[in-house]
Amino acid sequence: MLIRVGFDIQFQIPAEVALVVLLNVHPSRVSDLLEPDELQAGPAVPVRNYTDSFGNRCSRLVAPPGLLRLTNSTLVRCPDEPDEVNEAGRELAVRDLPDDVLVYLLNSRYCEVDRLSKVAFELFGLIAPGWGRVQAICDWVHNKVEFNYQHARPTKTALDVYTERIGVCRDYQHLAITFCRALNIPARYATGYLGDIRVPLRLPMDFSAWFEVFLDNRWWTFDARNNIPRLGRILMATGRDASDVAITTSFGRADLVHFFVVAEAVMETLAHTDQDSSASRSTATLRV
Amino acid sequence: MLIRVGFDIQFQIPAEVALVVLLNVHPSRVSDLLEPDELQAGPAVPVRNYTDSFGNRCSRLVAPPGLLRLTNSTLVRCPDEPDEVNEAGRELAVRDLPDDVLVYLLNSRYCEVDRLSKVAFELFGLIAPGWGRVQAICDWVHNKVEFNYQHARPTKTALDVYTERIGVCRDYQHLAITFCRALNIPARYATGYLGDIRVPLRLPMDFSAWFEVFLDNRWWTFDARNNIPRLGRILMATGRDASDVAITTSFGRADLVHFFVVAEAVMETLAHTDQDSSASRSTATLRV
Amino acid sequence: MLIRVGFDIQFQIPAEVALVVLLNVHPSRVSDLLEPDELQAGPAVPVRNYTDSFGNRCSRLVAPPGLLRLTNSTLVRCPDEPDEVNEAGRELAVRDLPDDVLVYLLNSRYCEVDRLSKVAFELFGLIAPGWGRVQAICDWVHNKVEFNYQHARPTKTALDVYTERIGVCRDYQHLAITFCRALNIPARYATGYLGDIRVPLRLPMDFSAWFEVFLDNRWWTFDARNNIPRLGRILMATGRDASDVAITTSFGRADLVHFFVVAEAVMETLAHTDQDSSASRSTATLRV
Amino acid sequence: MLIRVGFDIQFQIPAEVALVVLLNVHPSRVSDLLEPDELQAGPAVPVRNYTDSFGNRCSRLVAPPGLLRLTNSTLVRCPDEPDEVNEAGRELAVRDLPDDVLVYLLNSRYCEVDRLSKVAFELFGLIAPGWGRVQAICDWVHNKVEFNYQHARPTKTALDVYTERIGVCRDYQHLAITFCRALNIPARYATGYLGDIRVPLRLPMDFSAWFEVFLDNRWWTFDARNNIPRLGRILMATGRDASDVAITTSFGRADLVHFFVVAEAVMETLAHTDQDSSASRSTATLRV
Repeated sequence: MLIRVGFDIQFQIPAEVALVVLLNVHPSRVSDLLEPDELQAGPAVPVRNYTDSFGNRCSRLVAPPGLLRLTNSTLVRCPDEPDEVNEAGRELAVRDLPDDVLVYLLNSRYCEVDRLSKVAFELFGLIAPGWGRVQAICDWVHNKVEFNYQHARPTKTALDVYTERIGVCRDYQHLAITFCRALNIPARYATGYLGDIRVPLRLPMDFSAWFEVFLDNRWWTFDARNNIPRLGRILMATGRDASDVAITTSFGRADLVHFFVVAEAVMETLAHTDQDSSASRSTATLRV
Repeated sequence: MLIRVGFDIQFQIPAEVALVVLLNVHPSRVSDLLEPDELQAGPAVPVRNYTDSFGNRCSRLVAPPGLLRLTNSTLVRCPDEPDEVNEAGRELAVRDLPDDVLVYLLNSRYCEVDRLSKVAFELFGLIAPGWGRVQAICDWVHNKVEFNYQHARPTKTALDVYTERIGVCRDYQHLAITFCRALNIPARYATGYLGDIRVPLRLPMDFSAWFEVFLDNRWWTFDARNNIPRLGRILMATGRDASDVAITTSFGRADLVHFFVVAEAVMETLAHTDQDSSASRSTATLRV
Repeated sequence: MLIRVGFDIQFQIPAEVALVVLLNVHPSRVSDLLEPDELQAGPAVPVRNYTDSFGNRCSRLVAPPGLLRLTNSTLVRCPDEPDEVNEAGRELAVRDLPDDVLVYLLNSRYCEVDRLSKVAFELFGLIAPGWGRVQAICDWVHNKVEFNYQHARPTKTALDVYTERIGVCRDYQHLAITFCRALNIPARYATGYLGDIRVPLRLPMDFSAWFEVFLDNRWWTFDARNNIPRLGRILMATGRDASDVAITTSFGRADLVHFFVVAEAVMETLAHTDQDSSASRSTATLRV
Repeated sequence: MLIRVGFDIQFQIPAEVALVVLLNVHPSRVSDLLEPDELQAGPAVPVRNYTDSFGNRCSRLVAPPGLLRLTNSTLVRCPDEPDEVNEAGRELAVRDLPDDVLVYLLNSRYCEVDRLSKVAFELFGLIAPGWGRVQAICDWVHNKVEFNYQHARPTKTALDVYTERIGVCRDYQHLAITFCRALNIPARYATGYLGDIRVPLRLPMDFSAWFEVFLDNRWWTFDARNNIPRLGRILMATGRDASDVAITTSFGRADLVHFFVVAEAVMETLAHTDQDSSASRSTATLRV
């Protein structure tokens, strides 16, 4: 399966401002790219890439006053299978976790492990360790939290989600991550593209959030928001929580004026022969 | 100046538990060590070292049920000068910051930059950028927060410190760090040894916290708790906040039953000739 | 000036539920009523009135499953003058406050005086006591908080408003009330009708919130949201904060499905002669 | 049973300050008083009494700079039976609650019903209504919260207690009250004297907190801290939470320098014949 992903994000910039953006496909998916994955800035200010301590490909730029437009479009090969499920996946004892995984057991800005530790044990402490326990956490969060775009706010933490029971995709993942960590299960936040055929058409598409859990010596995808295996996730970044992997961070004022994201499955034959023709591509488009 | 540092920390362990500890001198100070700096565990369980993503030397061990005793003692050469002061130190524009410094502008568990951003601008936004502004932040925090061991709690955040105005050393630094970051000044939390002649004798010594600020292309030491240049800081770890550099983290129950820390200036001659005699050493001791 | 006020509020009730509503004009305004002020419920369940400890006229009812419709319309005579301003108004020493006013100096659910006390003193402690200081508080809140319906949430407290700087009318008042109380100035929350000619037409009208301050031995109206003297406020209830004077409180599920509020100045002659003809009334309507 | 209650509370007052204190026995217990119950102030400033909106007997005074000493001692007749238990006690439907009880279903400063409502339903929603459910709430709070004087703080709310699981008597009651209210069971905070034979001798005695629940058309005593029926409670005040019934509230600085509370059972014969002789009384004392 091929998926065309891309975005057109525009800011009004009142005064020169530095930005860090996480708008590339994750290094782990570079071999799946069928087209270049280069962020375009307009005006054409220099964009410098670097890799952060979590292994994400970040970009830095300085935007002059006026309109800043960030765009990109690339084509990614995806497995025809949905997220892997491994019901036999085992939790590792902390003693057996790799060193670089330990950080994903700790507190972070939106994941107050210290404040939800007792609750996590009460809810999930008696469930058999392993994949099933992580799934139980996802089920709980999925069933108890109501999705509502109106109640999103940037400062909402896992504890807020636990008490308010309302949120958007990042909020679901923050709460599930926090419960996992409280049980000594490493969990990290993930952001990327996820097409969606079920979302009402009038709802503008956004980047999506899910999370990853370390079981059986590798990271696995979970998603407390959707809570079913999905096709076509394209990872952009992972971190401790949303604070580490904000799509765009401006160090000064930058007013978002346009936001468009796309992630669409494309017919492989068309994609190969005519991948630059947006007219034909759009007819060949099938939302994931 | 030579400083003998060390500790004797004991836990009662009800059931086997994994621990991560940050109890070594920081790699940046290894060349100042005059004695080995090796953590001793009793019982003698294996202790494995690794370096975390912040560059700290961490140790992992698995403690069996019963008493766990962690001890160490080493001798460190320190400058005879107090913390450097550079009143001409300049804030760098975000565009000019090294990539690996950017993370110290973001939110972290105890430093809610997002919630204190407006306050920081109101309090310090009009002060000339640079060393003087960071010092103004330290002065404000130092003057407005009351030191009180009774009101320490592990979940206290910068916002709590700002509203409650009471805390211990880590709380002072968290608030100052948060204000710095809100103003786009990179700031990170530091923990280590700091002897103190002014503390009442009955107060048991603890590890200390201070913070570092990136000005003029390097990190500088600030301390909103003491707020005067001090002799004899010996760094152990830096991170985004206390959550990253907890002295000990146990992934399960471990009840602290004994806690003793020492950091004392020793006469150089005595130290060299008789460094194992605790009797003579104690007479030669001068608290920093 | 005559103002027609009223509402049409509808809930879908899944199972029998008790409600308490505050939907009458405040007892202090009963002498200004030119028409009866009786809440209509459909279906016609019994509605029982009582006066709460704050002196508000409350109504209790039990709604059966199905649609519940609460409506009312009445005509109120209002002064032709906007909110009184008394720049010479003095703060009373606490010792001189009436007993029943003291409660308006304390903490309440959305007004954490204990957490904002230091901030209040830093911002307003040096301003001369009296009307001017309360006005300074209103000016500060009005200028620092951005109005945004999208970011309303029922759990938002004064501290949240102080850190997030975004809110709706009740949020402005909660922060201003908290600052007043921290300075020993009694302040209470008020809710009622307030017509508004400045709101964009597409925005549905809502009940409004303001607050009252005790100066010179009586209560005065302030409004940190609008921050200008206004015509035509019609008080419905006062309390410590929004928690005391919720327009409707359901003790079980009640899903709001329709919400319409009106407060319109009507021509006195038309109002008197033809007050039941909605056709002619609407042509004579002028939004306050 | 006769109980001698009293206190000696001293403040250092830097500048004239108004205080409101709740230091009398509750009006409901006046008929049990065997001696006058009059607050003594030293210096002998005027003390004026009033009844607040919750029915408590409050005192107001203005303290001059210097030492302020508040003392009292009185003798109270108590039932020989511990707190009443009525396992058949029924929850009333909200529709059947008296008007003046409704306020005890709402949010208050330390009882965030809105934030713990879902949790309360998950924990206790399926338990049969009535006395047993309130007892289940007390059991849960009693078992899950650890008593610790070191972690007391004046801003701690029910949500904090729920997440931190540590507190003093008032914290236990706030959490239990909040759970009750979330389930539509009216609950109010109570403060008063409660002798305790079990407290280690070195622990200074304090006033105590418990709570009251409205079942079967009257208020009943519950105590999530002690969680057993106790002899000799002497009520001083009830309110929505600790914010309503602070023992002392100073509207300006007043530094507590001495705090002594006593509540001791006395032999009836001795008490009657020699109630003014503190020497003989102390030998006849038996801690409740």
